[in-house]
Amino acid sequence: MPQNPESLTVGELSESELLARIFPRLHGGDSSALLLGPGDDAAIVAAPDGRTVVSIDTQVVDQDFRLEWNNGYRTTGYDVGWKAAAQNLSDINAMGARATSMVVSLTMPPDTLVSWVEDFADGMSSGIRELGAPDCAVAGGDLGRGRELAVSVAILGTLDGQAPVLRSGARPGDTLALAGTAGYAAAGLALLESGTPVDGLNSEQRTLMDTQCRPRPPLAAGPLAREAGATALMDISDGLVRDGARMAAASHTVLDLDPVALKELGVPLQPAASLLGAEPMDWVLAGGEDHGLLAAFPAGVQLPHGFTAIGSVEASAPTDSTGVTIAGRPADTVGWDHFAD
Amino acid sequence: MPQNPESLTVGELSESELLARIFPRLHGGDSSALLLGPGDDAAIVAAPDGRTVVSIDTQVVDQDFRLEWNNGYRTTGYDVGWKAAAQNLSDINAMGARATSMVVSLTMPPDTLVSWVEDFADGMSSGIRELGAPDCAVAGGDLGRGRELAVSVAILGTLDGQAPVLRSGARPGDTLALAGTAGYAAAGLALLESGTPVDGLNSEQRTLMDTQCRPRPPLAAGPLAREAGATALMDISDGLVRDGARMAAASHTVLDLDPVALKELGVPLQPAASLLGAEPMDWVLAGGEDHGLLAAFPAGVQLPHGFTAIGSVEASAPTDSTGVTIAGRPADTVGWDHFAD
Repeated sequence: MPQNPESLTVGELSESELLARIFPRLHGGDSSALLLGPGDDAAIVAAPDGRTVVSIDTQVVDQDFRLEWNNGYRTTGYDVGWKAAAQNLSDINAMGARATSMVVSLTMPPDTLVSWVEDFADGMSSGIRELGAPDCAVAGGDLGRGRELAVSVAILGTLDGQAPVLRSGARPGDTLALAGTAGYAAAGLALLESGTPVDGLNSEQRTLMDTQCRPRPPLAAGPLAREAGATALMDISDGLVRDGARMAAASHTVLDLDPVALKELGVPLQPAASLLGAEPMDWVLAGGEDHGLLAAFPAGVQLPHGFTAIGSVEASAPTDSTGVTIAGRPADTVGWDHFAD
Repeated sequence: MPQNPESLTVGELSESELLARIFPRLHGGDSSALLLGPGDDAAIVAAPDGRTVVSIDTQVVDQDFRLEWNNGYRTTGYDVGWKAAAQNLSDINAMGARATSMVVSLTMPPDTLVSWVEDFADGMSSGIRELGAPDCAVAGGDLGRGRELAVSVAILGTLDGQAPVLRSGARPGDTLALAGTAGYAAAGLALLESGTPVDGLNSEQRTLMDTQCRPRPPLAAGPLAREAGATALMDISDGLVRDGARMAAASHTVLDLDPVALKELGVPLQPAASLLGAEPMDWVLAGGEDHGLLAAFPAGVQLPHGFTAIGSVEASAPTDSTGVTIAGRPADTVGWDHFAD
């Protein structure tokens, strides 16, 4: 008797049967970088300038996402596929590079629905296309069983003959700038974990929630920053203050944030903050996962499209306890009432 | 009060503290391919001929290994690190390529001992060196929490300007050959799952068990096969018959195995077979995880060092139900009494 396709689980298919359902959905055909695609022991990807930029990132259920949130939202396969693509694309972007390919390893409990996995493949492909990385092919992968759902993606990219932009290059006097959003994903996480049903959210609140589930890193911004002469660049996936401190440490500088710019970043978070009785500035400063891009540019450089100035790079003094300050005061000791009207 | 270092868990350290303990143990310094190592958003690896060979593989606890086996053996971090290196190195070897780097993602329950993770890093580094891939650097990684232990490794390699050897190139008339062992890891798995205490194993049996825990793929064999003109090449990680059928399908041929050669492959498995009342030929034909290398060579070519002839490539007939035969009879229907004395 034919199986109801909606209830078919991965435990009922062989690995090759499952791969046959997934591969046609994975993005790849358009990429000239993919010299040998899935199906052999390994894939072959072009590295036109003789170098490959590489990173790996893993999402695990109940650590990085919940299948069902407190507000009733159910994470779709599409969400997880999109987020896996977005996170990894952002790491390549943050080197000033361009993604050429991904390899994907998906670990699933046997009762995972096949339709969920197909949705995952669709989300990954859509993320690659819609975020603006059409040259990035899914070159291969690995499917396996486990008690908990997990996805690991390794991503490759090319610098197209240019030098990478590291986090260690910021210099005193540089302008500090941000591309993308800050705090949206953290506000979205708070909404997902709140008691407010997902159906009751307005469109601004829903946008914040969507940023947690399907982040939109500003992919064009990395190569643009490199071309504009950025001295340092990094993905602020762990939050502005925490990742900023890493750039400061690597560059032996202090990053001083401008309270006026920070306050501006908090404005779109107000609809969630009001609902939850939260402080937007906590999300702006500590929230990661938007995958915004933090960059330092030489003073006077016209900031490329998508970047907003949010502070400056300063010389570090031996007594500095933190690498990030707000108007000269250590960020980790500044009360957010500092931003009150 | 200082923590007893033996009982320190990963849950008690920050990610950066844990990374600081692992990175110095990871192989990397010797590789001229590593242009930018761990510490930025991504690493940069040389791809001297403008191409990168790439693959990904995941091991999950209780799927791919047990922390404690039925025979009392406890899987060490060293074992898991070694096996992760070996599996991935084998995929590059099986393209006729040479590994240049790995990126590693380790997911761990918070009660995982830090000493276990350090041992993991040591095992990975030793595997890389001892298996013969000194140019392969660990370029970066990702540490995360999960309910179950899992490790994903993506590996990059170079073909050094040569063409890859695919599984699709076997031609009727070719000699079929094997490098490495077949069935050792399966026999070892049977010993691990048996009631015979690990302390009671003799050295031959212990060698088989060790192959399951720390496989030794014949890394030199891939490039040697390519240089000798191999027409097809693949890692038989899923077993000789199953993977052989994949080579046969990709090449539109039949692989005919020589029963005398197969019987020879079974000889070293006898000490485990006798103990467990098992049939060595089951392990030779169906056992994977030794990561032996199956190759087809043009008839008359002198087989490179490490390869043994085990059969021939034949034209396929439309009626063939399987791609692998033994002395002309479908392998999946041949009873192993065929091999009895």
